[in-house]
Amino acid sequence: MTQPLRVASVGLGRWANVIAAAVRRSSELELVGCFSRRAQARSDFAAAHGCAPASSLEELLARPDLDALLVTVPNHVHAEVIERAARAGKHVFVEKPLAASIEDGLRIVEAVRSSGIKLMVGHSARMLAGSRRIRRLIDDGELGDLSLVEANFSNDRALELTPDRWRADPDRNPGGPLIQLAVHQFDLIRSWLGPVEAVAARIGHLHTRTRVPDLATCLLRLASGPFAYVGSSWSSSAAYWARVYGSRANAHLEVDFRYWNQGERVDAHSRLRIEPNGGDPYEVELEPADMYRDELEELARSVREDRTPEVSAEVGLANLAVVHAALRSAESGREVRIDEVLPEGVRA
Amino acid sequence: MTQPLRVASVGLGRWANVIAAAVRRSSELELVGCFSRRAQARSDFAAAHGCAPASSLEELLARPDLDALLVTVPNHVHAEVIERAARAGKHVFVEKPLAASIEDGLRIVEAVRSSGIKLMVGHSARMLAGSRRIRRLIDDGELGDLSLVEANFSNDRALELTPDRWRADPDRNPGGPLIQLAVHQFDLIRSWLGPVEAVAARIGHLHTRTRVPDLATCLLRLASGPFAYVGSSWSSSAAYWARVYGSRANAHLEVDFRYWNQGERVDAHSRLRIEPNGGDPYEVELEPADMYRDELEELARSVREDRTPEVSAEVGLANLAVVHAALRSAESGREVRIDEVLPEGVRA
Repeated sequence: MTQPLRVASVGLGRWANVIAAAVRRSSELELVGCFSRRAQARSDFAAAHGCAPASSLEELLARPDLDALLVTVPNHVHAEVIERAARAGKHVFVEKPLAASIEDGLRIVEAVRSSGIKLMVGHSARMLAGSRRIRRLIDDGELGDLSLVEANFSNDRALELTPDRWRADPDRNPGGPLIQLAVHQFDLIRSWLGPVEAVAARIGHLHTRTRVPDLATCLLRLASGPFAYVGSSWSSSAAYWARVYGSRANAHLEVDFRYWNQGERVDAHSRLRIEPNGGDPYEVELEPADMYRDELEELARSVREDRTPEVSAEVGLANLAVVHAALRSAESGREVRIDEVLPEGVRA
Repeated sequence: MTQPLRVASVGLGRWANVIAAAVRRSSELELVGCFSRRAQARSDFAAAHGCAPASSLEELLARPDLDALLVTVPNHVHAEVIERAARAGKHVFVEKPLAASIEDGLRIVEAVRSSGIKLMVGHSARMLAGSRRIRRLIDDGELGDLSLVEANFSNDRALELTPDRWRADPDRNPGGPLIQLAVHQFDLIRSWLGPVEAVAARIGHLHTRTRVPDLATCLLRLASGPFAYVGSSWSSSAAYWARVYGSRANAHLEVDFRYWNQGERVDAHSRLRIEPNGGDPYEVELEPADMYRDELEELARSVREDRTPEVSAEVGLANLAVVHAALRSAESGREVRIDEVLPEGVRA
C-alpha cells in the first residue's frame, strides 16, 4: 500500500464538508489540515473532520507533510489560492468552475505549468456511474451515429439567494446558474464528445430578487459534429438529466438531485434508460461509483503516476470559456466562437 | 343528435389513412368522399374507408352534400387546395404545418377570412392527454412560477429518405425536421405559454444523404417571460418529450412514439411525471383522449357553433413563422424576431 495523499481543506463552507466526507471514503487520501479566514469555521471543521487547523494559509502551505490543497473558496478567489499553492509546490483539487473570469483561469493554467503541480478540477458530473456508462455506450457504437446531446441541471437556489452573498454578485458569479450548474453539463458533454467550438445562448433574470441571472439556455456547436443543448434554471424545482440521440438508440440519464451531495449514494438514485431505434426501451443497471471520492482519487493517482489529471486546468478553462462565450452571446444576440474568448495556445 | 360534418379526404397518402381512421372513431363526422390525382390511390382509399372517390377536386367540391375537406396533400400544395375549398364554401381540416412558405400561409389566412369558412390545423400534440393535463397544472398554479419549457420530437425518417421524395427537397420541406416535427412542439409551447417573440436556432445536416437538413435546435423567447428550447433530430431513435420547470414543481411528459399514429392508444403509452420542489416525484394518471379524433371534432364543433377553431389559420401561421425565423437565425447566426418574418396584422 502506497502512502495516501495528505490533503488540507481551504475555504470551509458547505461544500468543504461534502469533499472532506469523500476523503474519508478513500484510502488514497488523508485529511491532515484545514484553513479558513474565519477562526470559528476552522475550529468547527477541524473538530468535525479530525484535522489540524492552520491560522493562516502561509502556515498551512509551510507544512512539509502536506501534499495538496482541496480548494473550495469562492470562485473569484481560486486563482490567488492556487498560485500560492503552486509556489509552495502543493498539488490542488479545486471545485468547479476553475475560476470566475478567463483572466483568473489563465493565471491558474500558468501557475500549474510553471510549477509542475498536478491540478484536478471538480467537474464531478462526468464521474457519475451513468455518465461513465454513456461514454462506454458511445465508444462501443451502441448508440450508432450521434446527432444531438441535451442536458439540464436546475435547482431553486436563486429563490433563497440574498443580495449580500457572493453568488448574488454578477461580477463574482457571472451567469449565475450558467457558471454554477450548466458548467457541469458543458464538461459532461466534453467528456462524451470533445470540445465545444461555438455557443449561442440566452440568459434570463426571471424570479430572483438579486442582480444575478437565474436562467440560462445554450446551443453548443461541437467540433466532432453533433449539436448540443444545455439548460439551467436556478428558480425551479431541481432537475439533473442528459439525453444522447443516436441512430441505433437514445440514452437518457436521470439523476435524483436530492442525492447530489452524496457521491456514495447518488448512483443508486440515478436511472439510465436506453431507447433502441424501434424497440422496447429498457433500463441499464448502473454499478455505483462515488463521484466525489473518484475525483479526489484521480488527483492522488495523477501525483503517484506523474501524469496530468483527467480534468486538468486546461479542461477547466475550456469549460469556463464556454460559460463566457455564452455570456457574450446572450449580450450580443449572436453565436460566439470559443476562440473569441480564449487564446488557441491554452485550449484543451 | 345533430347531423355529422360530412368530410372528404384530399391527398391519399399514409397520413390520410390515420385521419380517416379517426373519423370512424367519431360520431360527429362522416367520411363521404376522397380525391387524389392518382386513380389507383383513389379507388384503394375509397374501398378501404367506404367513401365515394371523385375524379377531380372540382367534382368533389361541387358535391352539395360535402361540408369540409381533410387536406393531407404535401405542405407546398396546401394553399392551392385550401383556396379552392374556400371558394367552394367548404370548411377545412389541414395537416400541420399550415404551409411550407409564409407566402402560402398568408394566402390561406386570406382565403379563410374572405370566405368565412372554418379552418382547423392539425397541431395534434397540444391535444395529447398529457399536454392538456400540463396546461391545467400551469393554469391552476400547481407548477408555481415558470422558468423554462423544453421539448423534443425526433425520429429516424431522414435515414430512409431518398432524393426523389418531396420531403427531401429543402424548397418544399424547408428545415426538414424543423417544419415536420419541431413545429408540433412550437404549437404545444404556444398552447401552454402563448406566443413566441424571437428564435435563435441551429440547423444541421449530419447523416442524411439528401439535401434537406436532419437536425434542428432552437431557443425561443416567449412574450409571457419563460424561455423555451425545442430540439428535433430526423436521424436518431425516436423521442417525444416535454418538460416544464416551475418553482413549485417540474412536469415531465414522455410519449412512446411507436403509438404516435394511433390517437386512441397514444395516451395510454404516455407518462406524466411531477417532480415537486424537494419532494418525491410521482406519476399522474392520464385520462385517455384521442388527439386525431379530437382535432377533427374541434372542426365539426366550430362549424356547428360558428366560432374560430382552437388551432386557426392564424395560429398555424404563427407556428410556421417560428419555423422560418429559426431558418433565418440558423443562416445568419443571430436571434431573429417573429415580426421579421411575419407582418403584425396577421399574428395570432
